[in-house]
Amino acid sequence: MTRESIVDGVNQGITSIHGLIAQGRGEAFDYLIGEKSTESALKAEKVAAAKLLLARKPVISVNGNSAALVPDELIRLSELINAPLEVNLFHRTEERVNKIIRHLRNRGARNIFLKSDARIPGIEHDRAKVDSHGIFAADVVLVPLEDGDRCKALLDMGKTVIAIDLNPLSRTARYADITIVDNITRALPNISGFAEELKCLGQEELQDIARGYDNRQTLSLAIDEIKKNMESFVDLSKP
Amino acid sequence: MTRESIVDGVNQGITSIHGLIAQGRGEAFDYLIGEKSTESALKAEKVAAAKLLLARKPVISVNGNSAALVPDELIRLSELINAPLEVNLFHRTEERVNKIIRHLRNRGARNIFLKSDARIPGIEHDRAKVDSHGIFAADVVLVPLEDGDRCKALLDMGKTVIAIDLNPLSRTARYADITIVDNITRALPNISGFAEELKCLGQEELQDIARGYDNRQTLSLAIDEIKKNMESFVDLSKP
Repeated sequence: MTRESIVDGVNQGITSIHGLIAQGRGEAFDYLIGEKSTESALKAEKVAAAKLLLARKPVISVNGNSAALVPDELIRLSELINAPLEVNLFHRTEERVNKIIRHLRNRGARNIFLKSDARIPGIEHDRAKVDSHGIFAADVVLVPLEDGDRCKALLDMGKTVIAIDLNPLSRTARYADITIVDNITRALPNISGFAEELKCLGQEELQDIARGYDNRQTLSLAIDEIKKNMESFVDLSKP
Repeated sequence: MTRESIVDGVNQGITSIHGLIAQGRGEAFDYLIGEKSTESALKAEKVAAAKLLLARKPVISVNGNSAALVPDELIRLSELINAPLEVNLFHRTEERVNKIIRHLRNRGARNIFLKSDARIPGIEHDRAKVDSHGIFAADVVLVPLEDGDRCKALLDMGKTVIAIDLNPLSRTARYADITIVDNITRALPNISGFAEELKCLGQEELQDIARGYDNRQTLSLAIDEIKKNMESFVDLSKP
């Protein structure tokens, strides 16, 4: 089903063919972590929800894969935590940006940053374009499926970066402040669930949840999970 | 470069968009085995070369990804071991089959099975179509990037199946007689290299090379390699 959504995304012109290769890489890692939200991923998702609720200017970055896979969940989270969406593509064309914006609006998104009047310093031209009131000004950015360079550039601007990345060894995973090693189709509903649960809490209680979070431990637990699964998968007799 | 070849393949209509997702899955596993031909992969490649040289009717199955990635290496191996090529697609359309045949011919392929006048028993319609003098009649089939069902169906017909599959846990990997856990871009030149080296040997010497080969050991060593690499990759500090 996920695979069909992404193929539909290509046919609609919102997912790039490089996005399909990225989808395949994600599938492989998802298989290795057991195609479930691990305990450590759930913990990262809860801390992410707290950080997003604490943020003054949170923004959710949307790329071609996330728009194809989880448009409704992006919109739901956006409304829950009052974080606008902003389309931000690795292989950027204005045509594809506009198609994704239309796609999100058709699904009901009302709060989208639309301009590309600012630049993230330190990365090349098209990939640097952002909205001066959106990602450029944000204090916390949720980046599902981000590349390493842009993840680092956002951190260099002083932002808190929450990444969703199934590869716990990737540069993005290692750079980010909070790395959610989970499939985006599970991660977004989980973050929204936690956001609903934590919404009524005050600042201090939210800070208590976020305090002491250790991203290296999250990554390390994800790696342990893969190794454990490789053991348990291994029935090398003919299936 | 590999990624660009496969994207070109899509643009030329020879690679399917499902093939791109498969490419991504392969990239992830290649990364985990360290993007090199391991010792156990080289051993499987050598045994594969011996088996192909021993075969009475070897055939090399070609799909959209292998045609895009390694057309010249497919042709080179085909000539070295006197094994014709046969286009065999998971998402089969006659148009794509014909495009791949033209692509291979343009690169110099002369020996291609062209008909689809026979069926592999036990698998559904379009995926079952093969040439009655080709894969249907073959004793040894080299299947780069095959799906599990068709791999099993070929084995059920009594054929020796040599698979190239970067995922040592996949059904194809576990079914095949010889599983080469290596990137097709390295595996094919390696098999050709061994075929050149072994070409002058007699039947008995070739049989000595193939004898005692243990595919479960190959898979087990590939899994160990991944686990070892996961350890050594792990520098969880910011890159």
